[in-house]
Amino acid sequence: MIDWRDYDAPLLSPILQAALDSFVTGGFHGTSIRQLAGAAGLSVPGLYHHFASKHAILAEIDRLAMEDLWQRSVAALADGGQEPTARFDRLIECLLLFHAHQSDLAFIAFSEIRALKDQHRYAHIAARDRQQKLLDEVVEECVADGSFTTEFPRDASRAITTICTGVSQWYRAGGELDPAGVAERYGEICAHAAGLPMK
Amino acid sequence: MIDWRDYDAPLLSPILQAALDSFVTGGFHGTSIRQLAGAAGLSVPGLYHHFASKHAILAEIDRLAMEDLWQRSVAALADGGQEPTARFDRLIECLLLFHAHQSDLAFIAFSEIRALKDQHRYAHIAARDRQQKLLDEVVEECVADGSFTTEFPRDASRAITTICTGVSQWYRAGGELDPAGVAERYGEICAHAAGLPMK
Repeated sequence: MIDWRDYDAPLLSPILQAALDSFVTGGFHGTSIRQLAGAAGLSVPGLYHHFASKHAILAEIDRLAMEDLWQRSVAALADGGQEPTARFDRLIECLLLFHAHQSDLAFIAFSEIRALKDQHRYAHIAARDRQQKLLDEVVEECVADGSFTTEFPRDASRAITTICTGVSQWYRAGGELDPAGVAERYGEICAHAAGLPMK
Repeated sequence: MIDWRDYDAPLLSPILQAALDSFVTGGFHGTSIRQLAGAAGLSVPGLYHHFASKHAILAEIDRLAMEDLWQRSVAALADGGQEPTARFDRLIECLLLFHAHQSDLAFIAFSEIRALKDQHRYAHIAARDRQQKLLDEVVEECVADGSFTTEFPRDASRAITTICTGVSQWYRAGGELDPAGVAERYGEICAHAAGLPMK
């Protein structure tokens, strides 16, 4: 079982990390293959040795991000008590930690989705839908056992997803909250959004 | 006073609307000035007669969007009872209606912000901050009078903003909910996120 709270090991290879940094600064379409090679300390042919195209680099970054989020989410759900609210709390903690620790990755995976072509775009959408469905089911479990009172579990689940993914838009390392602080504070807000009664 | 619930009149000129449609399909960097001219039924020199550059078109779309949202928000706050929760409900309704009716506009204003240069970027950030501050103050009024119980009004306000702006990511005309339905259902979720006690 992976440690879903641990972000010490880098997810991306140095080449992909350099590409991600370039995309964050200049956008996918605004970054040339020459700039990506330079950022990675490679020649253009050297970069093409590793990846067939700029698009293949974006697609691989996106695939790794969505797969990592999924593996962590499944681990978080399994890792402890199986009461619905305990499962909800861990899944939300996992989503919030991911979008704080990996804010650049999540921002690019979201904002450059239109740049993904063909099967890579379908794969992204399938991964996103699978991730949403996981949360939908947990919210429904919490409603079914009376822990949450929302009349619209699917909408609450979607709203909670946007709170969590929205973290990648504003989170900056070195700000007021560290990732654990984000998870604690916004986790509570998410639970209330789904109709957790006030204490 | 403008009617902040009315979206019958188009906000954008036909040239800007055609450009917005093109940006939604292909992204700002992925769309050429030639494509923008063609979409507007103009020659390239004809388009340059109206706008100095592709960037000027994006900047004008963004400026109009942020100004329209601001005018509607101010009108919504003034338009009725001044109890804090009534003001909150109207402001959230306004934000949700805007991001459903103008989902393409809001999506581009958000996702292409990195393409905005210099003073246009600063103007966007200033407009966004002014908009966030408006909501922050209303949430704080609701906490001060005991209507909302959140311990972290600023964070709740930021989470609520992401719920509202997130509508522009998933809303599609002709889906299950119309804009008024989105406003009703997600308005309730937003109020609970800020700690409105359950009924």
